[in-house]
Amino acid sequence: MTKVIIGVDLGGTDIKTALVSEERSIIAKASRPTGASEGPKAVMDLMAESVFDLLREQQIDPSQVLAAGFGAPGPMNWQTGVVFDPPNLKGWKNVPLADEMSKRLQVPCYVDNDANVACYGEYWLGAGQGAESVVVFTLGTGVGGGIVVFGRLLRGIDGTAAELGHLTVQRDGRLCGCGARGCLETYASVTGMIRSAVEGWDSTATTLKERCGGNPKNLTGKIIYEAAVAGDRFALEVFHETAVWLGLGAASMVNALNPERIVLCGGMINAGDMLFDTVRETVLANAFEVPAKRCEIVPAGLGSDSGVIGSAGCALARYQESHC
Amino acid sequence: MTKVIIGVDLGGTDIKTALVSEERSIIAKASRPTGASEGPKAVMDLMAESVFDLLREQQIDPSQVLAAGFGAPGPMNWQTGVVFDPPNLKGWKNVPLADEMSKRLQVPCYVDNDANVACYGEYWLGAGQGAESVVVFTLGTGVGGGIVVFGRLLRGIDGTAAELGHLTVQRDGRLCGCGARGCLETYASVTGMIRSAVEGWDSTATTLKERCGGNPKNLTGKIIYEAAVAGDRFALEVFHETAVWLGLGAASMVNALNPERIVLCGGMINAGDMLFDTVRETVLANAFEVPAKRCEIVPAGLGSDSGVIGSAGCALARYQESHC
Repeated sequence: MTKVIIGVDLGGTDIKTALVSEERSIIAKASRPTGASEGPKAVMDLMAESVFDLLREQQIDPSQVLAAGFGAPGPMNWQTGVVFDPPNLKGWKNVPLADEMSKRLQVPCYVDNDANVACYGEYWLGAGQGAESVVVFTLGTGVGGGIVVFGRLLRGIDGTAAELGHLTVQRDGRLCGCGARGCLETYASVTGMIRSAVEGWDSTATTLKERCGGNPKNLTGKIIYEAAVAGDRFALEVFHETAVWLGLGAASMVNALNPERIVLCGGMINAGDMLFDTVRETVLANAFEVPAKRCEIVPAGLGSDSGVIGSAGCALARYQESHC
Repeated sequence: MTKVIIGVDLGGTDIKTALVSEERSIIAKASRPTGASEGPKAVMDLMAESVFDLLREQQIDPSQVLAAGFGAPGPMNWQTGVVFDPPNLKGWKNVPLADEMSKRLQVPCYVDNDANVACYGEYWLGAGQGAESVVVFTLGTGVGGGIVVFGRLLRGIDGTAAELGHLTVQRDGRLCGCGARGCLETYASVTGMIRSAVEGWDSTATTLKERCGGNPKNLTGKIIYEAAVAGDRFALEVFHETAVWLGLGAASMVNALNPERIVLCGGMINAGDMLFDTVRETVLANAFEVPAKRCEIVPAGLGSDSGVIGSAGCALARYQESHC
């Protein structure tokens, strides 16, 4: 009887659940609202319910389940499975997520941070599949990251590795939420792109102001992208600049890690060539020739499911490591 | 009978040789001039002679030798052991170093690049010993690097990884020898420090000009350091700036890899606290708190022998991998 691994992606908005077979085939997926305002106990009960519902729908007996993996927002201790105080899960404070879910599901439960599981998902069953090494950049409000080398997620000694949004790309550059200056995410995230637009739009002709009703708070990455596609030169320049910064961060990782593949995740990748062409050109112009030509820079293969699939993948890998 | 591993550090000026026991004790070391102008065949004969001399002196029978490792300047293919065209070994062009040395020594021979073997040496028997993960910066004419994670040297898919002198720390910054701009080594190498001094000395009072007879070509890192120690404010500022840049590169690696230890190698580390205090402060100010506080930033433990000891260490690791 085939063994099954459960993946759960715990986000501030939605809980995604997936069942993956030990032979790496995705059996089923589901999603429901997190209801984060109900607090950790309710959310954990809901995750368990989602899992049992999915198992029942697929007529999978709980005895077939090998392990369950949870991708959660950090900071956390991935080894103990305790989630400290994630900014987008209010009321969570040192929640022993792995232990609590083990009690509910009666299988070994493993917790990893959301960017890391997304990276592992892409390596395991997505655009990074088969690669010797993979670096992932997740592009959203911030820039997250993940690194797989030697077939394993590189978590670092405290589990804080792969904070690729916080590579310094400009000394004394933009102030970052982390307190430092010139971090990659201050330029290459959607927030960074919006910042570039707002900083520059007074001194140029652009449709961006009217597109967001003159209110910077209404400006989104999508609006900038649409303006760029519609021929707004300033929007195009802002988008291009964002991609150049991302390319500089990617070039540093190409020189530092010589990865076979870099996978970009997040809504911004829907811009396609407009993003990827510039990132690739910037890497070729800034990294050494051999690793720059080698490294394929590709969009996520699992779309928004990198995290939930990767949670299952991480759980399987950790289960196997602890049982070998 | 104890097994022995040979380490050879092939530099443009000197050939260093070492014998290390399988139990990790350094048995003997030697050094002689490379005589690089004699060409590759003569240099390889000399390396073999150095090895046999050292074995004879130590009364070690060649049958006790398990393997030999060679640290050589890149670029190269570490897997085939072919050295392409190192800038500081004139006349070398696609030399099959591993095969040639295997013929001469009649043991398995392995070749790795000089910064990587230095890193592995520090991890194996130097300041990185016992650490879960180690990042090395070698500070000289350029800035080299090495990364050990999961107990293994991270070479990347083409063996070009850990080019940490070529992290981008400043967009559109100083032009680098690699063709890109703003690479770490344009600021944090000895050459970068000299560049900072020469760029600035016309607009300030400094003893640096007279210390090098007014000729920038005579300026060295040592002169800048001595002037700084003697109270030359400009020299102190130049040295401090160099250390800040290095700290920014180190902070990026702390955020990206969350290493247990960063080891600095090269003559510049003789500056001691003047270098290390600034690097540590810059890392604490720019990287996340948990990994920044965790990461010990320490001077090389093997001095100028990191490379020769690491060559033996890499050879042992590769021998064991291929025989398990």
